[in-house]
Parts: sequence; structure tokens; C-alpha cells
Amino acid sequence: MGQQATRSRPQSQAYLGGGSARPAAGENVRMDRSAGTAMSADIAEQPEVLGRLFDVGAGAIDDVARTVRARRPRFVLLAARGTSDHAALYAKYLVEIRLGRPAGLVSPSTLTVYGARPDLTDVLLIAVSQSGRSPDLLGTVEAARACGALTVAVTNDPDSAVASAAELHVDLAAGVERAVAATKTYTAELLALYLLVAAIADGVAGEAASAAARVPELAGQVLARSAGPVEALAPRYRFAERMLTTGRGYAYPTAREAALKIMETSYLPAQAFSGADLLHGPLAVVDAEMPVIAVVPRGRAGAAMRPVLDRLVEGRADVVVVGDVAAAPTGSGFGAGIALPEIAEELSPILEILPLQLLARDLAVARGGDPDAPRGLSKVTETW
Amino acid sequence: MGQQATRSRPQSQAYLGGGSARPAAGENVRMDRSAGTAMSADIAEQPEVLGRLFDVGAGAIDDVARTVRARRPRFVLLAARGTSDHAALYAKYLVEIRLGRPAGLVSPSTLTVYGARPDLTDVLLIAVSQSGRSPDLLGTVEAARACGALTVAVTNDPDSAVASAAELHVDLAAGVERAVAATKTYTAELLALYLLVAAIADGVAGEAASAAARVPELAGQVLARSAGPVEALAPRYRFAERMLTTGRGYAYPTAREAALKIMETSYLPAQAFSGADLLHGPLAVVDAEMPVIAVVPRGRAGAAMRPVLDRLVEGRADVVVVGDVAAAPTGSGFGAGIALPEIAEELSPILEILPLQLLARDLAVARGGDPDAPRGLSKVTETW
Repeated sequence: MGQQATRSRPQSQAYLGGGSARPAAGENVRMDRSAGTAMSADIAEQPEVLGRLFDVGAGAIDDVARTVRARRPRFVLLAARGTSDHAALYAKYLVEIRLGRPAGLVSPSTLTVYGARPDLTDVLLIAVSQSGRSPDLLGTVEAARACGALTVAVTNDPDSAVASAAELHVDLAAGVERAVAATKTYTAELLALYLLVAAIADGVAGEAASAAARVPELAGQVLARSAGPVEALAPRYRFAERMLTTGRGYAYPTAREAALKIMETSYLPAQAFSGADLLHGPLAVVDAEMPVIAVVPRGRAGAAMRPVLDRLVEGRADVVVVGDVAAAPTGSGFGAGIALPEIAEELSPILEILPLQLLARDLAVARGGDPDAPRGLSKVTETW
Repeated sequence: MGQQATRSRPQSQAYLGGGSARPAAGENVRMDRSAGTAMSADIAEQPEVLGRLFDVGAGAIDDVARTVRARRPRFVLLAARGTSDHAALYAKYLVEIRLGRPAGLVSPSTLTVYGARPDLTDVLLIAVSQSGRSPDLLGTVEAARACGALTVAVTNDPDSAVASAAELHVDLAAGVERAVAATKTYTAELLALYLLVAAIADGVAGEAASAAARVPELAGQVLARSAGPVEALAPRYRFAERMLTTGRGYAYPTAREAALKIMETSYLPAQAFSGADLLHGPLAVVDAEMPVIAVVPRGRAGAAMRPVLDRLVEGRADVVVVGDVAAAPTGSGFGAGIALPEIAEELSPILEILPLQLLARDLAVARGGDPDAPRGLSKVTETW
């Protein structure tokens, strides 16, 4: 059994009815919410979940970080699937930039399908999974541990197989996620990974944790303030045949997660590209019929997105900017976009995804679907 | 200046007119080839290019491998963009499986946009680029070398900035690529990386090189035999609004490269997913209007694709199998698909992409475009 980061798990049932003092999305909106009530509840609960992780979980995360620091890993591998893979990608940026260690995303098949047994001495492997039950992730953690890696599982179920297989465990304590499409466990993964990497990098109780202290409150503000603009935006994509999302650096995982969320709930094929990769080929598919959502934080990645936005406008794409709306180029399709409050760039992914979760839900409803029950999917995906 | 793997560069002009004794695609086909003649010539030249790399380049690659072995790297990072990023992904599988070393794909922005300076002692960084001229790749190589990494550049231009910045260089010697969409430089990158990793893993003149000896001849066979079936297949996607490609393990880079090639030349938004990731969400977009190309080699990755194929058929997708056509599930849209000859699974990506390059070209022509001149793109993409 892995060492539990959060030993007493909060009762998620207490949060099922909402009951947060923070503003929740879905209030005061006119759209029919009989479809998507579970997803709406998960989305609305995020300020609460983030606050709990920050208040209760951070100490336990510090314990894990202390053990990791003592082992002095030189290389970091991240293993995940689906939504959690986007949290892992976010953590990869944090590890490379904040921790100053080379990092890679594991291709699980190398260990599970091909049976590779690489030398993982001095390697920290972080497995991220909401359910903690995917067989190939379990196989990856077991193989990595056998190959000498220090293993940490970040899951929403401390009793799960993946949590048990890892040497150390961080519990998201996000409560039961009701919708198939993950929302609150994603932002909880982002914050948990931020706190973990920051504590490994800076030592416990460093500046990083205080920088993140505002995140739960800001998340509530973002959900409240973006609900209206997102509801107005959703009908724009009612008859879209496809969509493109883009971002650079820390914002790239957001672009990927937004695309997945929209695919899962709205069945709209959405492709995510880093702003740089977009210019290396995929730009050719951009025309006036291509809706583009560009995630543009303030900071370095935002600045690096300017030439990408210019090329998209040249290609006559319909561009909506999420984040620093002042960066929206003249002539883009929708004008202002969805504005987000200022926060340190490395924390901005936790806020950026919120209006895009609302968009995935509203768009699914607008297209006549039910975001709570996407066809062909189940809450725990078992892959080998 | 980097140490040159191939000291005297073959004159690419000698190959411009074709002139290969091996069968070339585009012969004996009825489709109009006035559009796409450059891409056709590049595609047809591949058996020649692969043979030259094998015969002339392998010794020089062995020299690079000897230096790498002597330095005993413990971790491997790969850096690339666009098509070359798919060759880098292929190499990541080789490094993890054949070399038994943990590996990661670099996010160039961490070094260039965010200015991260991680400790890269004991790290081998392999940069892959056709042109060797992308500023962010150059910045990545320079930063990695300054941070202590052993750097190897794999490019088609030994005089390029990236080649010069790296400590060691492998020259693809593929000759000038005429079309914007990369074809012959991609397969040359795959073979060069295969030979390099195999020589690092097994020592020089190991079994690996002899296993690859048949590749140039088989490439010629594949181009000749798949030209007809591909020409028959292309009209199927004349009015497609989107496409999905999928593969697992070694075949996943092929799925990604096929999607990019089709986007670049046909402007058809094509998304690639690993078979496992597909089941974690994107499967929801699959319906009877979704054309799917599944890359299914013989071997372990092929076997791991069976449950994915079953789920696709359940979702009523239109599935065409490339590779082991016997794996095509009953009830799939097109039946047999495109058959490929048997070869070791780790070499199969070099053959798998060939009919998909032909498809990208034929589909572009069928849709009224010119695959030689994709809108919005140029041969050297400069990103920062």
C-alpha cells in the first residue's frame, strides 16, 4: 500500500448538493440544464475541491515531497492517459522549468506491450489517474518500481490499485466525480502536481504554496463571470464540423484538455496543437470554416502566441481568445473572447480550463446531447 | 561544426529525375499527376534514399554511435517539430525498448521561451530536423549542450545551423526535397535513427543493421504494389469532413505522420490517437461519418490494436486497416485495406507510411488541390 498523502479522506457526499459559499457556474443562466446536471455539479464544485486540497492536502503533499527530495531524482517520467495525461504534460513543464530536471512522458506500451525493462535508477516516476484503475497504468507503475524508479501515484482513490502499487501516494480528495467527462479531478490534479513539484523544487512551505493560495477563490470568480459569455459563445459552434485549439508552453495542456472535453461531450472533432507545431503543417487546414480557440495567458507563452495568432488571422480562421483578451488580433472572428484574471503564468492553467469546461457542457446541450453520458465512454477506461 | 557522419555528401541532383531501377509509385496510374509531381518524385525516390543511407551512411552513423556509447548516457531526450517530431517519437520507442533507457520528447519552449536551464549531465539529446534551420530547435540544441548534454543532430543539411550547433551529426543525405510536405526525409530519419539506436544498443555491426538490409527493396515493392489500391481508396475521402488515424506502440508515430501529411496536402482535418488514448475519450466522436485509418502491424502492437478495432466497429466507424489486413474486423467499412509485407515490427514504420504518403498525394489531387504547394506553408518553418 502506498503512503497516503491525505490520510482521512473528506466525505465527498457533503459537497454533492453544492452548498459552496463561492459563486457556482450554472446559476442565473437560462439554458436548460436537465442534461448535464452531473457535469454542472462537478464543475461548480471546483473552488471547494481546490480549497480543500490546498488547506488539507498540502501538508500531506509536503510529506511526499520531503521523501522525493531525500532521494534526489535526476530524471522525471510522467505516466497517464486521457485527461490525466494533460495534467501530466503540465507537470512536465513544471519539472523542466521549476525543478530543472529533464522529463519525459512515458509511452505505457513500451513497458506493458513490449515488456521493456529500462534502468530507472535515479528516476522519479509520477503516475496520474483519476480512478487509479487503468491496467496499463498499473503495469507501468509496477514495472517502473521493479526497474528502480521512485514511484508516486496521484489519484482520486487512495484504495485504488495504482495508488497501492506506488511507493508514495497523493490523494486528490476531490470526492466522487459524477460525470464521465473529468472536470474537478483535472483541476485537482493540476493543483496537486503544482504543489508537489514546487515543494520538491523549493522545499516545503516555500513561496509557491502562497502564490497558489488565491487559486480557489479565483476559480470561483472565473466560473461565475465566464458563465454568461460562454453561454453566449456556445451557439456559435452549433453546426461546426470541427474545431482547433492551440496554446504554447504552460497553456498547451489547456488546449489539449479543452479539445478532449469538447470531443467527449459534444462529439465535435477538436484538434489541439502547440502554437509552434501548428505552424509546422497543420496550419494548412485553417480556413474561414475553422473555429479556433486560442489559449493565451499573460506572460511568456502568451507573447510567444502572438505570431501564431497573426498567422491564424491571415488564414481567415474564426479565432476566440481565452485568457489575455487584449491579445486577440484585429479581424478575428469573435472579438474579445473570454477574459481571465491575472495570475502567475504557471498557475494559469488551473483557471484557463474552467470556461472551456463550461463551453464543453453548453455546447453539448446546444447540439442536443447529454454531457453526462457521452456515447461509447465509461468512467473507468481499461486499456492494456 | 559538428562531426559529420557522412563526409562526402552524395549529389542529390543525380536522383532528381528518378532513374531508379526499383519500381516507383505513380507509374501506370491513370490519375492526373500534373499536380503533385514534386511530391511524387520525392515519394518515388525513397528506396534509393534508404539504400544510400544504408550503404554509405551506416558506417558514419556507427562512428557517431561509438562516441555515444563511450559517453554512456543514462537518459535520452529527443527534440523535433512537425514531421521530424514523429521520427523522434519513433526513436523514443526504440530508446526505451532497444536501448533500455528512459526517454522524453523535449518541449522546446521550456528552454527557449521560459529559459529553463536543467542539469543535463549524462543526458543524450538527439535533435531531428530536415532543414536544420528552425530557430527554436537551434536554441534547444545550444541550451542542451550548455547544460551538459551530449548533443546529436540528425538533419538533411550538414551545413545547417542545427547540425553545426550539435557535437555530433548524422547526415540523412536524402538530397533536396522538392515538395513542401516531407516524405523521403521522414523515412530517411526513421532509418537513420533505427541504425543509430541499434548501433548504440548492440555495438557496431550488430544484427540490427542486417535486419534493416531488406528495407530499401521492400520499400520499392510497397510503393509499386500499393499505388493501385491507394488510388482506388482516395476517392472514398473526396467529401470527408474529417478523419481519424490510430496505431499503437511503434505504429503510433505512423498514425501521427499520416494525419499530418493528409492535413498538409488535402486540408482534411485528421486526428491521430494512440489506440489506448482513443479509448480514453476521443472514441466519443466516432460515428458512421468518421473515416478511420488504423495502422496495424504484425506483432505486439498489432495484437494490442484488436480491442481498439472492435470498439471502432461498434461505433460504426469506417475503418481501413494498413498493414496486417487480416486484422480488419468483420463489418468494417472498406474490408481488406492496404496490405504490407512482413518485417520486424520495429522496422515496420518505415514501410507503413509509404501508402499513406501516396494517399495524402492522391487525396489532395482528388480534392482539387496541389500537394506540392500547401497553402500557408513553406519548406522551412521558423518557430521560436
